[in-house]
Amino acid sequence: MNNIFVIGVGLIGGSLCLDIKKIYPKVKVYGIDTSNENLDMAVKLNLIDYKSSLDVLYKADLVLISTPVDVANKIIIDVLNNINSKSLVIDFGSTKTNICSTVDNHKKRRNYLASHPIAGTEFSGPNAAFSGLFNNKTMILCDTEKTDPNLLATAETIFRTMDMNIRYMDSFSHDKHIAYVSHLSHISSFMLGKTVMDKEKNENNIFDMAGSGFESTVRLAKSSPEMWTPILELNKENIVESLEEYIMNLNNFKNLLQNDKFGELKNQMTRTNYIKNILKGLR
Amino acid sequence: MNNIFVIGVGLIGGSLCLDIKKIYPKVKVYGIDTSNENLDMAVKLNLIDYKSSLDVLYKADLVLISTPVDVANKIIIDVLNNINSKSLVIDFGSTKTNICSTVDNHKKRRNYLASHPIAGTEFSGPNAAFSGLFNNKTMILCDTEKTDPNLLATAETIFRTMDMNIRYMDSFSHDKHIAYVSHLSHISSFMLGKTVMDKEKNENNIFDMAGSGFESTVRLAKSSPEMWTPILELNKENIVESLEEYIMNLNNFKNLLQNDKFGELKNQMTRTNYIKNILKGLR
Repeated sequence: MNNIFVIGVGLIGGSLCLDIKKIYPKVKVYGIDTSNENLDMAVKLNLIDYKSSLDVLYKADLVLISTPVDVANKIIIDVLNNINSKSLVIDFGSTKTNICSTVDNHKKRRNYLASHPIAGTEFSGPNAAFSGLFNNKTMILCDTEKTDPNLLATAETIFRTMDMNIRYMDSFSHDKHIAYVSHLSHISSFMLGKTVMDKEKNENNIFDMAGSGFESTVRLAKSSPEMWTPILELNKENIVESLEEYIMNLNNFKNLLQNDKFGELKNQMTRTNYIKNILKGLR
Repeated sequence: MNNIFVIGVGLIGGSLCLDIKKIYPKVKVYGIDTSNENLDMAVKLNLIDYKSSLDVLYKADLVLISTPVDVANKIIIDVLNNINSKSLVIDFGSTKTNICSTVDNHKKRRNYLASHPIAGTEFSGPNAAFSGLFNNKTMILCDTEKTDPNLLATAETIFRTMDMNIRYMDSFSHDKHIAYVSHLSHISSFMLGKTVMDKEKNENNIFDMAGSGFESTVRLAKSSPEMWTPILELNKENIVESLEEYIMNLNNFKNLLQNDKFGELKNQMTRTNYIKNILKGLR
């Protein structure tokens, strides 16, 4: 492993570089980003060694794509066209069906691996990157039967050395489940923040009355719209379905409340308390 | 301050006792609870010194009511009837209009202070109590013009010594604002947990795909149904209103998504990012 290229030097790309440099201490890391400011910052923070561009990709042993998902989907063909035949290309986006479909008939399809690390924070940009972000987190790899087995093995070794827990899934199932387990959480949080801010024009009421519970439920409303708008677009059908079920449950809860069905409300909350066991399993 | 009675020895009552014992090291703390098991635990954990009952309240210098809000509303008249004329009675429930209305014409109304500490965790019971829960948290005091000024001053001294930040509000405004800033968060979290658990019958999909974001947004779904069902009942009108606005925002978001209005979705998320500044103000 001599030359690694990272496209998108933000939270994910930057944190990946920090961990991979530990695995391959002599590797040279080249950064590509539409923001020259972010590239300069990434050099300053030692996330990358050099600024670079797509036309130099033929030198790459490994290409990491950690851009917003729409950008990844747009550049993946160019990336595959530019790499040499032994390169491994991995993308780290939160939706997988679309990009897997884009590359499906490319002659270098076997050089590509679709991944989604279940890791991140509500912060973004190279400044948000840190070593250890991926430690003990899940790494989902999709449609791995379409990736060259030797290149796949290289990727698996890297992720295991980063102490990640690898899971395998087809890209279609990935997008369906992730809509519920991740994308819906973000929307519920954004809309909760909006509802409260619309109502409480006087911010002092929020400052005075909000506790750690409010903080926890709206934390994801800090997330980057640049990252999330393309996710909404590329996983639209699944997200609409999950939103419809969430809204149905909320409407049902509201109707029970309006009709004084407190016993049934209590039963619903008691059954949902089972989430304690599920959250324990996350650790 | 010789004798303090705490009614309801759970997270709030138990944590209050720990802090107040530090302020008055010689005080005797008497606990009252419908659960004898909780009382025994509270003695064992040194939250209280003695088990007691409502008919001994005449000895109390201070009575702390930290039961579910429906219980507080039911027992407050008995409590006021049983105390001596110099006692201070404080309740710590999350809804205030109802209990203030219950005591409004009582001859000992001036012995009563309506409070709501913006503090808590998703855990409950005496085992969940800890010293420092209230440190640097907001304490909302309602309708204080109806409390005897000397007794109010005693309460203020206690809360300031506990490093709490006191705010004043009428009980009606309290219930209206708290529906948005606290109660709605709990419902959004319970229904998010329900939606995901209904969908993901195979828990492994949640274990594998859920990250810290999901954990944060469903944390409140661990909350106690025994505590929350009466809150829903006593603040029904305000909660229904907040739920309707939340559901309207979610429906609007879904419609924008279905109609490919990604620019407007991005604008909404960008505006909601302003929550960053509000959350900073909480610290």
